[in-house]
Amino acid sequence: MASSDIATLLIHCPDRPGLVHDVTGFIFSHQGNIIDLQQHIDPEQNAFFMRLEWSLENFTLDNEEIESRLQPIARRHEMQMRLSFASQRKRIALFVTKENHCLYDLLARHESGDLPVDIPLIVANHETLRPAAERFGIPFHHFPITKDNKLAQEAAQIELLRQHRIDTVVLARYMQIISPAMIAEFPNRILNIHHSFLPAFVGAKPYHQAFQRGVKIIGATSHYVTADLDEGPIIHQDVMRVSHEDSVHDLVRLGRDLEKTVLAKALWWHARDRVLVVKNKTVVFD
Amino acid sequence: MASSDIATLLIHCPDRPGLVHDVTGFIFSHQGNIIDLQQHIDPEQNAFFMRLEWSLENFTLDNEEIESRLQPIARRHEMQMRLSFASQRKRIALFVTKENHCLYDLLARHESGDLPVDIPLIVANHETLRPAAERFGIPFHHFPITKDNKLAQEAAQIELLRQHRIDTVVLARYMQIISPAMIAEFPNRILNIHHSFLPAFVGAKPYHQAFQRGVKIIGATSHYVTADLDEGPIIHQDVMRVSHEDSVHDLVRLGRDLEKTVLAKALWWHARDRVLVVKNKTVVFD
Amino acid sequence: MASSDIATLLIHCPDRPGLVHDVTGFIFSHQGNIIDLQQHIDPEQNAFFMRLEWSLENFTLDNEEIESRLQPIARRHEMQMRLSFASQRKRIALFVTKENHCLYDLLARHESGDLPVDIPLIVANHETLRPAAERFGIPFHHFPITKDNKLAQEAAQIELLRQHRIDTVVLARYMQIISPAMIAEFPNRILNIHHSFLPAFVGAKPYHQAFQRGVKIIGATSHYVTADLDEGPIIHQDVMRVSHEDSVHDLVRLGRDLEKTVLAKALWWHARDRVLVVKNKTVVFD
Amino acid sequence: MASSDIATLLIHCPDRPGLVHDVTGFIFSHQGNIIDLQQHIDPEQNAFFMRLEWSLENFTLDNEEIESRLQPIARRHEMQMRLSFASQRKRIALFVTKENHCLYDLLARHESGDLPVDIPLIVANHETLRPAAERFGIPFHHFPITKDNKLAQEAAQIELLRQHRIDTVVLARYMQIISPAMIAEFPNRILNIHHSFLPAFVGAKPYHQAFQRGVKIIGATSHYVTADLDEGPIIHQDVMRVSHEDSVHDLVRLGRDLEKTVLAKALWWHARDRVLVVKNKTVVFD
Repeated sequence: MASSDIATLLIHCPDRPGLVHDVTGFIFSHQGNIIDLQQHIDPEQNAFFMRLEWSLENFTLDNEEIESRLQPIARRHEMQMRLSFASQRKRIALFVTKENHCLYDLLARHESGDLPVDIPLIVANHETLRPAAERFGIPFHHFPITKDNKLAQEAAQIELLRQHRIDTVVLARYMQIISPAMIAEFPNRILNIHHSFLPAFVGAKPYHQAFQRGVKIIGATSHYVTADLDEGPIIHQDVMRVSHEDSVHDLVRLGRDLEKTVLAKALWWHARDRVLVVKNKTVVFD
Repeated sequence: MASSDIATLLIHCPDRPGLVHDVTGFIFSHQGNIIDLQQHIDPEQNAFFMRLEWSLENFTLDNEEIESRLQPIARRHEMQMRLSFASQRKRIALFVTKENHCLYDLLARHESGDLPVDIPLIVANHETLRPAAERFGIPFHHFPITKDNKLAQEAAQIELLRQHRIDTVVLARYMQIISPAMIAEFPNRILNIHHSFLPAFVGAKPYHQAFQRGVKIIGATSHYVTADLDEGPIIHQDVMRVSHEDSVHDLVRLGRDLEKTVLAKALWWHARDRVLVVKNKTVVFD
Repeated sequence: MASSDIATLLIHCPDRPGLVHDVTGFIFSHQGNIIDLQQHIDPEQNAFFMRLEWSLENFTLDNEEIESRLQPIARRHEMQMRLSFASQRKRIALFVTKENHCLYDLLARHESGDLPVDIPLIVANHETLRPAAERFGIPFHHFPITKDNKLAQEAAQIELLRQHRIDTVVLARYMQIISPAMIAEFPNRILNIHHSFLPAFVGAKPYHQAFQRGVKIIGATSHYVTADLDEGPIIHQDVMRVSHEDSVHDLVRLGRDLEKTVLAKALWWHARDRVLVVKNKTVVFD
Repeated sequence: MASSDIATLLIHCPDRPGLVHDVTGFIFSHQGNIIDLQQHIDPEQNAFFMRLEWSLENFTLDNEEIESRLQPIARRHEMQMRLSFASQRKRIALFVTKENHCLYDLLARHESGDLPVDIPLIVANHETLRPAAERFGIPFHHFPITKDNKLAQEAAQIELLRQHRIDTVVLARYMQIISPAMIAEFPNRILNIHHSFLPAFVGAKPYHQAFQRGVKIIGATSHYVTADLDEGPIIHQDVMRVSHEDSVHDLVRLGRDLEKTVLAKALWWHARDRVLVVKNKTVVFD
């Protein structure tokens, strides 16, 4: 029955006494050993959040049984639960356009083992990055997009993603607005990288806006994509100091370092089931 | 004729060949030794910016003569010039309301000699911080402000500032909107500290806005006050990482450290004539 | 029996299954509601660390009873426990020499309510900061220290601290090495601020060392004082970018902002019982 | 005669009046327009440093003439000068071992045009990264190194670098100590990335040392290689916050992001002739 796997449980429910006790009791009673436990209470919303990792080494339940056996606790406390196993890596589709920095960065991390996901395919609306994809041996699917074919092409993309049992879509500088069908297919499972410190400089050409405003710091934001452009739950942000000496061109160049590290970190947390979304905000169990 | 003083010259003009050569020639020809020279060219606007510090130790002109003797160069190149002397410290009025952190921070820096300005008076719209002012021996002027008396009180404030030959107004968490008369009296000489990373969260209660949006980083911005609320030229910004664990109350508490250091640094640059304002942006010669 | 207080429990013991379950069971069984729970496991040392905050509002035990009632659990798991109550603020002695920035910073935070401690007294080896202490109405005790009287003066200081039931000593830029008797009296309860990024630049004049080495970033470190100079467990560190333009004097001036915020944050964590020391390292439950 | 090129002049000499005036006079007299001028004075050493960029568009001298025509000024002021042209990109050799993150990062920047250098070859002491080099179409030279063949292999490397007219060697996580012959061949032209915040954690396994000491921040340092291991002039440093939750393995993983951005930025400055080395410290004209 035992496996050397690790289970992760994300929980969200109304706060009340005894929640931690109940859940840890379940794990303890089946010989699981907790490796990491983080909980958070939002007193304003009376909401309880918890992330729990435990070793399955001596666990007395099969992986397939765990979810159903947790149901009584979940029902009793009105819990929303998400159970996952370290052994089942998420399957990621990378969406790109022409810029290569986020793509190369993710592929290099993947190759060196730093990014615990599978990347079965890359989707692009231009041919530009096909050689980059091919260098890393990852199938490249080109969906040229025009005003007229956009919905049809997205439907074809969704079909492709289903075939490959894709779990999460990563917009690695994909310069297209995602339509509602795709968002509905991957709720809180599409990550975007926006090249500004949101909510500053929403929309197009944020570095130009930043230059225009004369800010002294630029940023990048990774968030889940929702129906409201650049308004989805923020997962991670970082910033960098700039000065009057930096042209728009400099901001674009410098900002790439932010974009790639911010997106990679957000994806890492997502891949490790460290992100809970509640009412357009995230709880990130770092 | 010689003095151990230091002169600082800020220049802004259309870019053209020979500018540095002409100005340094003037200094060299009167036995001045340049201590620091920074210049910057904005190719888009074809604009030239320079800051120059030189020792007056062996300088052959009196301080009073320098400006007029520079005029031919200024006229030839359509230069806007600002000349100042380290020996003439700027006279600052601190405006406060109830929060003490920026006030104490500036007064402590001033007392230890880290802030090269004079602070002849403090202006407040509440009595709260009178004891703080008195501890540091600085005259405290209380101007209670209501909807009805606001313009009259500001007129009285301006009169007071004139009497004390105030050069610069620092809004050290002063919770009143400054009216046009005051702004006209101190063009690019009123510094404000806004408790957000502008242009995000303009206006009231930025920490509440930040909490609401779920940002992962908060900021503070010091800028010159102009007629457009929170839209003036940005002098300095800094940020700090926060998490889902932080309540609005935590953001307010944590943000105070940003507010005080950002305002103090902006004022330090201003006091040392390191800031040039051009078209709602600043050039900060750090 | 109930109170509106909050209890905090810090636990450190060998890791084994059921720890969280046992402790949360105790709280749950007496009607306590957990507000915050953080735990951490160090797999290398097989060590378990936990911090738990719970509301005493409906708790069925008196504050005085809690510790003894926890003993069976503690014994069973070989736990080292530290129990504290938010209502019992720590009593702090500030030790200073001549520099005022950390002193003013802590006093201003204290006055505004941001630092949940009592400060019954200030100890100094020079008279310089007596006016600063008096401004804030805090008794100032001058212990001039020479090579000959050092041990006698420290003995007198210890006596004074005992009289005032001081819990924690904060060396707010106190320029004396603390002798073993004082360290033994306050184990892991003396906080120091060292003006470098430890372990770089141990010992005297770290800014001079930093300038000499040509580093591009300077730092400050707050740590608990142990018998080994500058080698105690690190609580908090922060850094700041500098450049070739900065003289030693500039580093000293700029570094003060680091010193005061790093010390204040370390003290805040300490005051809130968020720091556990294990084998010369800290676990900071942020 | 005119070209659309840009010339860069780095100057280092004893400080005296008239230096800026003399050099800008030379440029002005030949119809050059200064694009960027930065100077710095170290009053302690009485040393003058300047970096000057000017447009050659209307310049009346050929590129080949400039250096000799500058000689009279250089001699008069005992200047050390370095003249370069944007059109002549530096030729870089990347040295690697097994880790791919810095290599991929530099190759991706190079491919996207962000790194203005030529990379004619990669040198490695293991075969591991040959596929990575081949993906980007850059010749890969394997020099296996043992205790016995080390000097002979380095001699062969130097020969190879000479053949390819290599200007600068970049140790992109090359796990070998460079011997004096190589250092003599490329004085202040070998860049290393050390995975700690120097001077903390010199030598082997800095992340292990950092973990052992319990620091709260880790860093990376890019420096020029000199005969003293990890003691060469520092070009750039950056840091990242870590916590007690991070294992050595986490520090290694997280630190890679620092290593690659710090090395890339140092190389960018070096490639643009923005770094002057004086007495084991750098002046970086940012």
